[in-house]
Amino acid sequence: MAIERLQALISDFASERDWHQFHTPKNLVMALTGEVGELSEIFQWLTPQQSTAITADPQGRSRVEEELADVFIYLLRLADVLQVDLVAAAEAKIRANEQRYPAELARGRAVKHSELRREVTP
Amino acid sequence: MAIERLQALISDFASERDWHQFHTPKNLVMALTGEVGELSEIFQWLTPQQSTAITADPQGRSRVEEELADVFIYLLRLADVLQVDLVAAAEAKIRANEQRYPAELARGRAVKHSELRREVTP
Amino acid sequence: MAIERLQALISDFASERDWHQFHTPKNLVMALTGEVGELSEIFQWLTPQQSTAITADPQGRSRVEEELADVFIYLLRLADVLQVDLVAAAEAKIRANEQRYPAELARGRAVKHSELRREVTP
Amino acid sequence: MAIERLQALISDFASERDWHQFHTPKNLVMALTGEVGELSEIFQWLTPQQSTAITADPQGRSRVEEELADVFIYLLRLADVLQVDLVAAAEAKIRANEQRYPAELARGRAVKHSELRREVTP
Repeated sequence: MAIERLQALISDFASERDWHQFHTPKNLVMALTGEVGELSEIFQWLTPQQSTAITADPQGRSRVEEELADVFIYLLRLADVLQVDLVAAAEAKIRANEQRYPAELARGRAVKHSELRREVTP
Repeated sequence: MAIERLQALISDFASERDWHQFHTPKNLVMALTGEVGELSEIFQWLTPQQSTAITADPQGRSRVEEELADVFIYLLRLADVLQVDLVAAAEAKIRANEQRYPAELARGRAVKHSELRREVTP
Repeated sequence: MAIERLQALISDFASERDWHQFHTPKNLVMALTGEVGELSEIFQWLTPQQSTAITADPQGRSRVEEELADVFIYLLRLADVLQVDLVAAAEAKIRANEQRYPAELARGRAVKHSELRREVTP
Repeated sequence: MAIERLQALISDFASERDWHQFHTPKNLVMALTGEVGELSEIFQWLTPQQSTAITADPQGRSRVEEELADVFIYLLRLADVLQVDLVAAAEAKIRANEQRYPAELARGRAVKHSELRREVTP
């Protein structure tokens, strides 16, 4: 199923419940925040290793899938009401990041591109 | 471009910079939180009406597209490392919500499904 | 009750349950994120006016107090494990903001200090 | 400096800039989200051990203090506009948690109180 089809499903779902009135971009950003908070609660006390193994357990997988779905649904809805093409925007950002984080400079170092440049610029 | 293709691009980008070591699910949830925070900063002082109009302004559109892209990129990466099919998970969740929020009960009311049931159950 | 006393209560609470092992700064930031997410869920569909009136309703007040408490508790705990004096840090930041946002420039305008300067600098 | 004094400073700061108009509870929750996002960005790629050591480095301490201050400032402002006594609310919540998480049940286990009860109830 393509992203546009999912967005249509979500819009119809909201429309049938007369929920479009609540779906301002501002409100949807808050709803997205709430879902990312729930995702965070799943992982907060896990070690890095436990976080990697979580989907090996059926119950863990089910919780994670549900929260990832909720985050994705609100992100799709937000992009829809703002008329932003998510896939095109992501591809453009990846291309921009390729310029901002040259592989030879960024290798193995998790720093912001602004700091990356500062470190190598006298 | 399909989601799997985007995920491959993102994974290659990280791999070329030796960043897979940082991409535990736990860390990626925190990175997602950071990006949602940046999105929130764009909208925090806007009225609901201003939030709806933001992409009519080229500069506003550009900022919003970039932050939505960042959120999407980390969500895609997170789903990838957890081996979760985002589209299938979203579709399953929409179907479940159709059961949990019957249109006739939920119409025009923004309450949680648990409260929805409680209100109509004596 | 002073902040240090609250922090001692929270530390004792965690210690009695052998929870200090979970309280790394990284984990506590995620727990804080989860609580801010719950706070966000309370307000997400409210109009600005409804958000202002929420504590006039006893049930609304109770929910808000509980979530604000949770956010505060994790913030206190985080400051404690990082050995940061929250009150001194906040006071220092307010003083810095007084420099960064001169009243005559910032009046009635919700923009970042960097943009504030840019606009008035030729 | 007491919390009420800090809140008065923050309110005066906003008042002098005619910013009270922006400080609805809804907007302040979004501002709090933005600051927690910035805090999250500091910690996202750190190991648990690195997160614990961050304030040993002067630059790390300075960044952490500034972000904790920002979170605290918006939390104080939010409690102020909602007329919630943060310290009293936190103390009440700690007392409630002492009931919800009996030490003998909760020892060494990071689970929610609802799950804690479920596990020991046949």
